[in-house]
Amino acid sequence: MSERLLAPHRSIRQFKSQPVPEALVQAVLAEAQRAPTDATAQMYSLIRVIDRSLRQRISQVCGGVPAMEAAPEFFVVCADLYRLRRLVELEGSPWAEFPHIGLHFATVDATLVAQRLMDAAEAAGLAVCPIGAVVNGITELPQLLNLPPLVLPLFGVCVGYPDEDPPLRPRLPLSLVVHENTYRQPAAAELSAAAVHMNPITRTGSWLVVLRRYFAAGGTMEEREGPFVRTLHQQGFAP
Amino acid sequence: MSERLLAPHRSIRQFKSQPVPEALVQAVLAEAQRAPTDATAQMYSLIRVIDRSLRQRISQVCGGVPAMEAAPEFFVVCADLYRLRRLVELEGSPWAEFPHIGLHFATVDATLVAQRLMDAAEAAGLAVCPIGAVVNGITELPQLLNLPPLVLPLFGVCVGYPDEDPPLRPRLPLSLVVHENTYRQPAAAELSAAAVHMNPITRTGSWLVVLRRYFAAGGTMEEREGPFVRTLHQQGFAP
Repeated sequence: MSERLLAPHRSIRQFKSQPVPEALVQAVLAEAQRAPTDATAQMYSLIRVIDRSLRQRISQVCGGVPAMEAAPEFFVVCADLYRLRRLVELEGSPWAEFPHIGLHFATVDATLVAQRLMDAAEAAGLAVCPIGAVVNGITELPQLLNLPPLVLPLFGVCVGYPDEDPPLRPRLPLSLVVHENTYRQPAAAELSAAAVHMNPITRTGSWLVVLRRYFAAGGTMEEREGPFVRTLHQQGFAP
Repeated sequence: MSERLLAPHRSIRQFKSQPVPEALVQAVLAEAQRAPTDATAQMYSLIRVIDRSLRQRISQVCGGVPAMEAAPEFFVVCADLYRLRRLVELEGSPWAEFPHIGLHFATVDATLVAQRLMDAAEAAGLAVCPIGAVVNGITELPQLLNLPPLVLPLFGVCVGYPDEDPPLRPRLPLSLVVHENTYRQPAAAELSAAAVHMNPITRTGSWLVVLRRYFAAGGTMEEREGPFVRTLHQQGFAP
């Protein structure tokens, strides 16, 4: 119904073994880095993991991610203030301490680049899948990827030619995620109806069960909190 | 030289007064919300600020942002765990405590949507400008926008028809931001050369001076840290 402005996005987890031509990878990366960047600072790095045994090892520490192992291309998207610090210090200026605001701007910068990378890849007929489970390996990844201080892995992006054709997955009604002028708190009935609308996004047919597994007490996010915070400290993103 | 996959991005700060047709705004928003989302959870909200006096007030608390006041459309991009918490609690599940990982996933989700919004807008011939200076108003914005706990303003996005035609601005060489397999630390000479390459991004002609103003001791980021951290606590994004 609505005008189609970009290639339709679906996360693809089954890829053909066909490699992505190197010129196309470079074109996608060139598009990605044209994303806007706060204060001109480009506070991100992409680690392109070509080595297959390293890829397997990363998948392993993240709990086993078949798409990551199968995709022709896989990038670890990192917040990066390390390069910026080196640049600031080039002229002898002392680096300031701003761990929270630093993580904020670097996470935003890195994610802008990653989404533009995905939009560019899909425009070229490629398929993508972001990998949030990279956070499961947050303790091991700095050493595996040889990350200096002030670099933090955020998530991964798989890229390749699709070998499945899933339907578009539902999203919440726009009226719940776009607000006019001020935040509108939805009624309970509105949320219940939205949950039913979202059910087809899961194989089990219950979206609320998926949300509970991730976000309720005893769920995945609670488990991830401790290792994430420890790595923030280790990598210099916490005071 | 490289294949063009998306409309070229330039941040535009001068907009025509011509409004964006409502159908096009809705089409852009529909594309935006197709961005991938972690754990299917859509941890973001967009506040579309239509009211002109509210827009001025927001600009004011952010230190004065002419583009924000002039753009036909302006969105405040927010991390949002509030709606998710309500959904998790619908069935009586207890919400868990995961402030850092929650901020991480919500910031990523919101930024994926914002970049897809910008890519879609540019594909439709519109121009955009993200506004990192929204963080300058972090103390006042929750009240101005009536944000509940677990909602945090991250940055803004201006959208409209361009009334200027600036050149594409430089980016760091890809070899500095894309790494193969493991992080490669650049030599000092490589960073110095990159800084010269980046100089045209500034009016003054010195990129390192811009970086110093933002990131060195006594700079803008250091100033932003305290209010940002206090608002993290106030909005429930810190333990």
